[in-house]
Amino acid sequence: MTENTIIGIHHLTEKSLGHNGIVQPLLTDLYQITMAYAYWKSGKTKDISVFDLFFRKNPFQGEFTIFAGLEECLKFLKRFHYSESDIAYLRQTLPDTIDDEFFDYLSKLNTNDVTLYAVEEGSVVFPRVPLIRIEGPLIIVQLLETTLLTLVNYASLMATNAARYRMAAGDLKLLEFGLRRAQGPDGGLSASKYSYIGGFDGTSNVLAGKLFNIPVKGTHAHAYITSFTDLTELQTCTLVPKAGGEHRNLSELATNWRLKLISLFNVVSTEASDGELAALISFAIAFPDGFMALVDTYDVKRSGLLNFCAVALALNDLGYQAIGIRIDSGDLAYLSNVARHFFNEISKQYDIPWFAELMIMASNDINEETILSLNDQGHKINCFGIGTHLVTCQRQPALGCVYKMVELNGQPRIKLSQDVGKVTMPGRKDAYRLYSESGDALIDLLQKSSEEAPQVNHKVLCRHPFEESKRAYVTPSKVKKLLRICWKDGNIVGPLPSLAEIRNKVQASLKTLRPDIKRNLNPTPFKVAVSDNLYKFLHDLWLQNAPIGELS
Amino acid sequence: MTENTIIGIHHLTEKSLGHNGIVQPLLTDLYQITMAYAYWKSGKTKDISVFDLFFRKNPFQGEFTIFAGLEECLKFLKRFHYSESDIAYLRQTLPDTIDDEFFDYLSKLNTNDVTLYAVEEGSVVFPRVPLIRIEGPLIIVQLLETTLLTLVNYASLMATNAARYRMAAGDLKLLEFGLRRAQGPDGGLSASKYSYIGGFDGTSNVLAGKLFNIPVKGTHAHAYITSFTDLTELQTCTLVPKAGGEHRNLSELATNWRLKLISLFNVVSTEASDGELAALISFAIAFPDGFMALVDTYDVKRSGLLNFCAVALALNDLGYQAIGIRIDSGDLAYLSNVARHFFNEISKQYDIPWFAELMIMASNDINEETILSLNDQGHKINCFGIGTHLVTCQRQPALGCVYKMVELNGQPRIKLSQDVGKVTMPGRKDAYRLYSESGDALIDLLQKSSEEAPQVNHKVLCRHPFEESKRAYVTPSKVKKLLRICWKDGNIVGPLPSLAEIRNKVQASLKTLRPDIKRNLNPTPFKVAVSDNLYKFLHDLWLQNAPIGELS
Repeated sequence: MTENTIIGIHHLTEKSLGHNGIVQPLLTDLYQITMAYAYWKSGKTKDISVFDLFFRKNPFQGEFTIFAGLEECLKFLKRFHYSESDIAYLRQTLPDTIDDEFFDYLSKLNTNDVTLYAVEEGSVVFPRVPLIRIEGPLIIVQLLETTLLTLVNYASLMATNAARYRMAAGDLKLLEFGLRRAQGPDGGLSASKYSYIGGFDGTSNVLAGKLFNIPVKGTHAHAYITSFTDLTELQTCTLVPKAGGEHRNLSELATNWRLKLISLFNVVSTEASDGELAALISFAIAFPDGFMALVDTYDVKRSGLLNFCAVALALNDLGYQAIGIRIDSGDLAYLSNVARHFFNEISKQYDIPWFAELMIMASNDINEETILSLNDQGHKINCFGIGTHLVTCQRQPALGCVYKMVELNGQPRIKLSQDVGKVTMPGRKDAYRLYSESGDALIDLLQKSSEEAPQVNHKVLCRHPFEESKRAYVTPSKVKKLLRICWKDGNIVGPLPSLAEIRNKVQASLKTLRPDIKRNLNPTPFKVAVSDNLYKFLHDLWLQNAPIGELS
Repeated sequence: MTENTIIGIHHLTEKSLGHNGIVQPLLTDLYQITMAYAYWKSGKTKDISVFDLFFRKNPFQGEFTIFAGLEECLKFLKRFHYSESDIAYLRQTLPDTIDDEFFDYLSKLNTNDVTLYAVEEGSVVFPRVPLIRIEGPLIIVQLLETTLLTLVNYASLMATNAARYRMAAGDLKLLEFGLRRAQGPDGGLSASKYSYIGGFDGTSNVLAGKLFNIPVKGTHAHAYITSFTDLTELQTCTLVPKAGGEHRNLSELATNWRLKLISLFNVVSTEASDGELAALISFAIAFPDGFMALVDTYDVKRSGLLNFCAVALALNDLGYQAIGIRIDSGDLAYLSNVARHFFNEISKQYDIPWFAELMIMASNDINEETILSLNDQGHKINCFGIGTHLVTCQRQPALGCVYKMVELNGQPRIKLSQDVGKVTMPGRKDAYRLYSESGDALIDLLQKSSEEAPQVNHKVLCRHPFEESKRAYVTPSKVKKLLRICWKDGNIVGPLPSLAEIRNKVQASLKTLRPDIKRNLNPTPFKVAVSDNLYKFLHDLWLQNAPIGELS
């Protein structure tokens, strides 16, 4: 049995692990290791803890989040081991007073005694509901904190951002172009992966394509256009027709077509760039079946579109269908309408039906609001290429997941705070999503794990965790237990879903949310409640732990 | 001669390359490879190009930027090679119509014919001045674009952000705590590295410490405190005095000290948490020489400070000096003053001089503005721990470096735009920084490479690149050529500076800027000019290339 079949997935190969070579136990905050030593020194190696990983606020002024990064977390647990060089580094970094046996202890540490429950990757999730509940020896569970947060925070933020773009763009194609503006190489890879999960159709990042089997897309940049100045620079002008036969002169055909089109475009021939025409001809010769052209290097209306149409019609003479154009500057709604107008005119005039359907891609500094505004203006764009705003999550560049101890040796733990929103939910808990008859998600309910699960068609009292008077009875038509076991006894439990399955999960999960929860402007919060039992447990513990002052 | 000595640096080891295993030729946008094919197909393999890498706007509403990422770029050039599996992936990804010889061409491609000039890493830089000028065969230079941008953009943004925090914090200590909120694992590592370069004193990220030899810092989290509920849980209570001898009971000493301090702190004993006291005692036993305590788990004034002082005084009885406290919530200026007040009182009352100097660290969601506002309020903080805002560069999460062709086969190239700010500076250029007698940087001057360098004590005409009437004569007391050769004939030229040297460079370079250029609010722009020659060259070319319309 190979490593891969043990953990039940086909895509955990050397290749994908390679990308994550840096996800190792030292990828953590030093205080996790100093705490480990202090716990060890205090004889707390047998203490058993329960921690919750959750966030307190949905990102992007929205009311939902997509949970992602779980697979990476499980792979990290699988690999968790301090190497000899790690131990040597820690020995030199920690104070000399550290007992030597501690390093032996660390070098033998693994995650076999840890059990991890998590929400399904790709699910819609909400504040306060544990995304991950992790149980096991305090020292090891504490040592996992930073790495798990690192793996979940950006992945979930990115998947959520991508899902929001997907909702704004409807059925249009979305491509991720953000590598050059990401937080370094791996930031770029994670962006490609999690934007695909969130609903994008592909990426420009070739390595992401190779590692994660995501479709990769891309044609050329402005530099390609400006590298040609006129038609005499074309060293190859000919192309064999798609059906085979003699080489034909594509350059001549395109030049002739441009002359014919000049009156339709209402320009003078001096306005259209010959360098651009040469560049497009050479690109069409290289990719006759995939001709997609950037048309805004000089002037979209007076040069780029005309040159593109001339080359596309020349290709058509040889039996090839062009793909379309990309516009990277200017008034995108207006220019897309202009382009579509000419495509329609040419389609009619020369009776080439597919010409009306040419793809129009837009790609200049686009964000969620741009897409919504373009929708309002009315545009003819089929595809957006999105970079900076997507990968940096400009509107909110971090998701604030936290990792809090909720139980130790069977005793609940609570973290109090003057800010009620920061009080933690004590104890080992389960989370359920209750659905209406029509399949809409109604509410998420947190309960103590010792409580019985809510039953279908049975009324259950759902309480606001902090506001005493806010209560509601809910009679679910379907109940889903959110936290499922994923890691036990040193192994991943059950097969991991493929990237495509997680991607489908996102869309399926979003479908269960009412539209008002998903809308861009002033969305309705989804309710997260606690059981009556958990409510009382929480508030009793709160009173027990809050210090009593004395006024004097 | 080993690989390391060839490239003249001591720290380019397997270890540091390991972190960058993903920085490889496929870490790029697909269009670079489709363009490469189209160039190859057009017979442009011998075309020689010059590209500039630069940005157009300083980040963070500031007027300066720190250039970083160069070493990573050079290592990438060194390693540049398409592996067999890369070629196999490209073969399957690109259209079937691609000529097979192209893949042979790719598999043999290297950067031996490329020459790279760059500004020194760690230098202060300004818009439009090339940070990198790269020359060589068009295909290979174009193939490097995305990866170089990825490596420079975030590194420079991060180093600039860190340098701004450093200016705001003056001589106070700054620690980077951002791993859990970074763009994934490598985003976290890059953040640690480049914030150190920008002027931070250390990081919590252990792997960054190991890979880059950066000081790592950290003590404990709230979970450590809440894992204890009372003093009976202490399995070890004793500690050997620093000078040696019999074990003493630290728990008893601390409990007694707390009783003595209660009146000074004006609290009742029920207010101070026994769990917190137990946690601090156990932590002090683990790190008697490095006792640094988080004091805001319950209540800074009524519990945390009192417990900390009790344990610190108990440690003092055994000859150990505590380090200080960390405050992670609440009114940081106020609480730091309260803490310093008690430290001073105890120092006087018990005649322990170092007690007044205990470190106060603050770490709750701090950004540049918070530090400036704390400075205004008056605080007693010695050290800031900074996470989210630092690593995500929340105020501007991307630097917009671009990579533009400026010359091809000896002919200048210009990219026009309706937005004047986006017009590129054509031709192979050099950049000089001119200094005043006092050592202040006066202006950056771009010239055609064919022009003679500006001379010390000789008047030189500096022109605004686009506004005809804006000109000034400058007589420099010192002239520095900014672009220096870094890569030639397949090798890194000269020894690379160490991380510490780059870090020093940042501060030295910032010192040459007038304070009004560096200030936070409405800073003065630093002038970037062109020579008279370059001005004319640029504008002649502009006119030649701009299409002439016809009104009708």
